[in-house]
Amino acid sequence: MVHGRISRLSVRDVRFPTSLGGHGSDAMHTDPDYSAAYVVIETDVDDGLKGYGITFTLGKGTEVVVCAVNALAHHVLHKDLKEIVGDFRGLYRQLTSDGQLRWIGPEKGVVHLATAAILNALWDLWAKQEGKDPQMLLSCIDFRYITDVLTEEEAYEILQKGQVGKKEREEQMLTHGYPAYTTSCAWLGYSDSTLKQLCAAALKDGWTRFKVKVGADLQDDIRRCHLIRDMIGPEKTLMMDANQRWDVPEAVEWMSKLAEFKPLWIEEPTSPDDILGHATISKALAPLGIGVATGEQCHNRVIFKQLLQVNAVQFLQIDSCRLGSVNENLSVLLMAKKFGIPVCPHAGGVGLCELVQHLIIFDYISVSASLQNRMCEYVDHLHEHFKYPVKIKHASYLPPKDAGYSTEMKESSIKKYQYPDGEVWKKLLTAQEN
Amino acid sequence: MVHGRISRLSVRDVRFPTSLGGHGSDAMHTDPDYSAAYVVIETDVDDGLKGYGITFTLGKGTEVVVCAVNALAHHVLHKDLKEIVGDFRGLYRQLTSDGQLRWIGPEKGVVHLATAAILNALWDLWAKQEGKDPQMLLSCIDFRYITDVLTEEEAYEILQKGQVGKKEREEQMLTHGYPAYTTSCAWLGYSDSTLKQLCAAALKDGWTRFKVKVGADLQDDIRRCHLIRDMIGPEKTLMMDANQRWDVPEAVEWMSKLAEFKPLWIEEPTSPDDILGHATISKALAPLGIGVATGEQCHNRVIFKQLLQVNAVQFLQIDSCRLGSVNENLSVLLMAKKFGIPVCPHAGGVGLCELVQHLIIFDYISVSASLQNRMCEYVDHLHEHFKYPVKIKHASYLPPKDAGYSTEMKESSIKKYQYPDGEVWKKLLTAQEN
Repeated sequence: MVHGRISRLSVRDVRFPTSLGGHGSDAMHTDPDYSAAYVVIETDVDDGLKGYGITFTLGKGTEVVVCAVNALAHHVLHKDLKEIVGDFRGLYRQLTSDGQLRWIGPEKGVVHLATAAILNALWDLWAKQEGKDPQMLLSCIDFRYITDVLTEEEAYEILQKGQVGKKEREEQMLTHGYPAYTTSCAWLGYSDSTLKQLCAAALKDGWTRFKVKVGADLQDDIRRCHLIRDMIGPEKTLMMDANQRWDVPEAVEWMSKLAEFKPLWIEEPTSPDDILGHATISKALAPLGIGVATGEQCHNRVIFKQLLQVNAVQFLQIDSCRLGSVNENLSVLLMAKKFGIPVCPHAGGVGLCELVQHLIIFDYISVSASLQNRMCEYVDHLHEHFKYPVKIKHASYLPPKDAGYSTEMKESSIKKYQYPDGEVWKKLLTAQEN
Repeated sequence: MVHGRISRLSVRDVRFPTSLGGHGSDAMHTDPDYSAAYVVIETDVDDGLKGYGITFTLGKGTEVVVCAVNALAHHVLHKDLKEIVGDFRGLYRQLTSDGQLRWIGPEKGVVHLATAAILNALWDLWAKQEGKDPQMLLSCIDFRYITDVLTEEEAYEILQKGQVGKKEREEQMLTHGYPAYTTSCAWLGYSDSTLKQLCAAALKDGWTRFKVKVGADLQDDIRRCHLIRDMIGPEKTLMMDANQRWDVPEAVEWMSKLAEFKPLWIEEPTSPDDILGHATISKALAPLGIGVATGEQCHNRVIFKQLLQVNAVQFLQIDSCRLGSVNENLSVLLMAKKFGIPVCPHAGGVGLCELVQHLIIFDYISVSASLQNRMCEYVDHLHEHFKYPVKIKHASYLPPKDAGYSTEMKESSIKKYQYPDGEVWKKLLTAQEN
């Protein structure tokens, strides 16, 4: 049973200096320090349960998200958890449509990332207290701005249909897990020898799907794609990711030159805001057998709705922290089901794998009921800082078994990496000054 | 001549408690406190010139924008102004594509508002030092993500054509000013008697174009539209503004019921992110003679590009602080010219009239060369806090004559309204506590 009144919401700025090793580097984000705004929600009940929520960031600017979390906190503080989840749609609307704060969004950028961190913490707490049924899930979704494509009635129908065969799919997940692909081998900042070495190790571990970063320099891309295709052979799956580097005509031209490496998709070929641009690229690349994927920086359900409306993508990539937590991701999973477009989540970063595995396994069990053309991103980084890290077996995510949203970080890690006063940053910042 | 190295960038949180009088209230923003993040840029040259830049906010959350300004400041500090404006496109790209900070945007929401505040200050400073020519203006625009619709060569051609008849248009502006419409009469929170009284006063002052807020309650809208149409008569122009309140089908249905009042446009019928939604509404309302307008919360040039590509709007509403300052607004003015869609800027708020008058008068003189279906919003609020307030005569904006971007606020006003330690807020916050 859900219980307790929210007595405290705290938020911390945790940064990992990943840029030092070139991890996470791509054509647009050359030196990311994988970071998180980390929210902890406590209640007045003495049951030892807390809600942990994160949103992922790239280092600088985490303090801005922290500031936004504090600006939103009053919508949650001193509220009864039972009342919150009893009208979760209402709370979602409050957070995203605050009469003054919505001006600096709305439902996008910093305030939406902050909203996600807070809501992720509430989901973690709620999940530790009780299970959910379809009707409860529906009541979490704000259908504003998407009823022209998905009504509450249609959503209910989809979830009802999802009950058929659920037991078998649950068992299948427990045995085999959810298929994953790896992005760990081919960051743009890695040397060829690192790339080769990581590729060989991944093959040995049973990985069959690989993603390579492209977009900064065509000749360099050709060389690196050659290298990776040679390593993995013609049968395994290769995806490419340009991280928004190109204009629309440039994307088509560039990818025509990388088509020989048979990529399954090109990810983020251009601005995440350019719905029509993605549709144009998609149409142009279809004859080459290349799909288009995007979503990790698509800021809300309205953008996803339109991507689906104009067939702009063949693969939809949700993000557990960019969208407004489970609430908004549910609406995107349901729309994708309606349009028959596979969801292949964005993960990696800090904790994104831990969170999004819940969403995509739920998608398979209760919504899409299919694994065709579906897989979840995996990056082998920073899991050691989480109390309930993901478990990967035979290149698949094994379903998490602990209650909650797997969002809790180890206190020892937080202390060490807190910015700017954690031990690691104290040293780094002192070194920078000298 | 441009000169000086930027030695200091400061930012302050200035809020006006406009919610106390229902000013600025609409269907989505019921209690705005019109506010600004206010940036001052100083150089190491002893010429007394400073750059003032603002971005408009609605109260809460201004501290988040302030935080983002501070996070971006290092891109500007200690740089030579001549080098900045010599490659203004480059600085724009640095601010909007910082490898770590772009994650919490990109080019949207809080970081983009902060970018606007900083760039507005740079434009103010630059404008005080020297004039501009078309080539200089072009070099300020980041064409990334819009070359499929507007190349630099096309933009140059448009500006070259804009030179023809420029002198005459300049003179016309000096004599007659730029046509404006008023939003001051019909905020949603005003009583009928206030509405009537303000309407009568506006008619007396020569206003011929009026905007009314709608969208919260249909019967209330019908009553208020009756009232205002009766006041202004059948010949004068009436616009309606729903401030994003509706879903797509709802917008069409609701506006069909308000069509009898002959509105020129319905503004923000739905989410500013819903390009296709606006196109659908636009198509449905065309037979009723109602146009669609949006833009004040459209977050960057990529959204405007798409609105134009699918004929989603009949009136494009730029905002001097939502987009990345003059740099990005220039690209939108040029795209609008190419598509033949009139630009009718959003103004009001804090300082938006002061800033956007420069853009729209430039648009008339150097880009559109037309006044057909064009007018700029005007709200009669808070101008007294500016050192160079707008001048309105016969319901038109008279061209500003002082050098700069009219962004400087009076120090006495800032001191009084600074949040939370200005005199006005000290009193209000103490009263709230008791």
